[in-house]
Amino acid sequence: MKHASFLLATLSVFALSLSAAKAESDLLKDARDYFEPVPHAIPSLPDNPVTQEKIELGRMLFFDPRISSSGLLSCNTCHNLGMGGDDNLETSIGHGWQKGPRNAPTVLNAIFNEAQFWDGRAADLKAQAKGPVQAGVEMASTPERVEATLNSMPEYVERFTRAFADNDGPAISFDKMARAIEAYEATLITPASKFDLFLEGNEAALSEQEKEGLTLFMDTGCASCHGGVNVGGEGYYPFGVIEKPGSEILPVEDKGRFAVTQTADEEYVFRAAPLRNIELTAPYFHSGKVWELKQAVGIMASSQLGADLSEEQIDAIVAFLRTLTGERPSVDYPILPISTSGTPKPDLMQPVK
Amino acid sequence: MKHASFLLATLSVFALSLSAAKAESDLLKDARDYFEPVPHAIPSLPDNPVTQEKIELGRMLFFDPRISSSGLLSCNTCHNLGMGGDDNLETSIGHGWQKGPRNAPTVLNAIFNEAQFWDGRAADLKAQAKGPVQAGVEMASTPERVEATLNSMPEYVERFTRAFADNDGPAISFDKMARAIEAYEATLITPASKFDLFLEGNEAALSEQEKEGLTLFMDTGCASCHGGVNVGGEGYYPFGVIEKPGSEILPVEDKGRFAVTQTADEEYVFRAAPLRNIELTAPYFHSGKVWELKQAVGIMASSQLGADLSEEQIDAIVAFLRTLTGERPSVDYPILPISTSGTPKPDLMQPVK
Repeated sequence: MKHASFLLATLSVFALSLSAAKAESDLLKDARDYFEPVPHAIPSLPDNPVTQEKIELGRMLFFDPRISSSGLLSCNTCHNLGMGGDDNLETSIGHGWQKGPRNAPTVLNAIFNEAQFWDGRAADLKAQAKGPVQAGVEMASTPERVEATLNSMPEYVERFTRAFADNDGPAISFDKMARAIEAYEATLITPASKFDLFLEGNEAALSEQEKEGLTLFMDTGCASCHGGVNVGGEGYYPFGVIEKPGSEILPVEDKGRFAVTQTADEEYVFRAAPLRNIELTAPYFHSGKVWELKQAVGIMASSQLGADLSEEQIDAIVAFLRTLTGERPSVDYPILPISTSGTPKPDLMQPVK
Repeated sequence: MKHASFLLATLSVFALSLSAAKAESDLLKDARDYFEPVPHAIPSLPDNPVTQEKIELGRMLFFDPRISSSGLLSCNTCHNLGMGGDDNLETSIGHGWQKGPRNAPTVLNAIFNEAQFWDGRAADLKAQAKGPVQAGVEMASTPERVEATLNSMPEYVERFTRAFADNDGPAISFDKMARAIEAYEATLITPASKFDLFLEGNEAALSEQEKEGLTLFMDTGCASCHGGVNVGGEGYYPFGVIEKPGSEILPVEDKGRFAVTQTADEEYVFRAAPLRNIELTAPYFHSGKVWELKQAVGIMASSQLGADLSEEQIDAIVAFLRTLTGERPSVDYPILPISTSGTPKPDLMQPVK
């Protein structure tokens, strides 16, 4: 009798937890179809082994303003790790106080994007890292100048030699600089957001409103473009599938991926923005013209999906989007090698207009 | 017999070490008359208690670019803690890419200076901290804008409240911002240089050449102006006591302390530069026109002392100056509070020429 009642009790608890698990698991199951959590471990790169030496070297390079010709701008200037891995400006300010053409994307979790830049023109982060260094409107430097700068400091020569021990050729090269920066950037991931806890099975990590937002995010169609680990960053879509936003938000002159592919049907096509840590990276869109997450969601709903969401629905989606803020990596600010008499002098020349 | 010879040996070793100690100790004794080592402990500030809360808040403020009206420039932009606590530029670049009038002094050990800025116009670091924030050529902000910015972020309100718990008035003020930054800057000290080890009694810490340089530094007269903890930073002296350097190094229009005191005999008077970590902070002088330490020493010797030093003597002084490089503080790069919709938007306007 005692045994029988124990068995009964056990069975009913089992049945209860099964049904509780089942009640929640539809949402979780759906979410797992669309999304993946940010991993806790540093991802490996197929063609660029992420070693401790390379990470440390990359961290120094990421913070070294002497990579720019002015000696003033580092990667961190526009991809500020103390902020959201970006600069919170509409579009970035570069050499000579020039205004860049697009909003700086976050470097946090960028390693999980299918390709880099708003138009995906760089296949990976090591290709990306070479862009701003050479862009006249950003760091305004050249591979030759960067190599001369790094070669002028014995500590860099030594660190490159150690980080690329299995590599032929000169100790320092522009390409190795980019590889070291990519290795460091692979460490800039933000796991353990509330949404990650949810995806990992802790369903209580999201509030009712946040769950409602997640449901809406999937049911309305947002997740069709914003999926995967980065809740975006994976495919290319026209801005304004249903209805183009005004030119104050979608400037006519920036035709997006068209500039890369020269294919007419890629006019105003952009990579779907990765939405991880989105509450940290205002203002929004490639134009950086929208400062409020709520407004951004409203614009996306109408222009991309033709959906007319209520105030409450938008609030719920915004609440869900705020659960995408993860644990930011702690950063030791690097002590950089000392310039020598061989280090190229800063070139502050205003660009020719 | 055995005992006697042991005693004799002991006595002669004792006598030898006495004479060795004596041979060295004149130099050490002289040096201790002029200089003091950088302390290992964070100095206390008479009117601004250095608490952990205040240090952490100050570190955030030091690295927060939203203190500037552009949202791009932080204290660390010109006082880069990864470099020598300065920017390694002739003169700094500020808002709108304007070129500042003077070379950025290092923030490292600045707490030990008698007064701040090249002309000593700020009595202490909390007065100094208010200057660049408001200077149109630097951060181009206002106390009101800074207060509105900080008040817009709940985490700052909370941190200010904790850091200034014993304080009346509003949680956040421009003055409290400056006090927090001063408290953080009090931690930016670099003890344990080779010269500090020497001053602390480890005479083997300096090589023969470095000792020769130290001797010359005192005997030629350099130490008369460059003394104390910071090997300078303590008094005001005309640049060109004996012979004014050319206007390429001493620009005619910058009359130094004259602008502060309006006293005719303070034309071209500047605070003696603190020489701690001098090898990290090229280029040199308030004009930032000299990139080589060797050249700087030569100019100082002839213009200030009328001394015609030999190549070897200058090399020895430079070797000594390189022993002034201490252990730089390790810096956790701060994770900054998130901007809100109330945070003033970046103002990137080019200054009116």
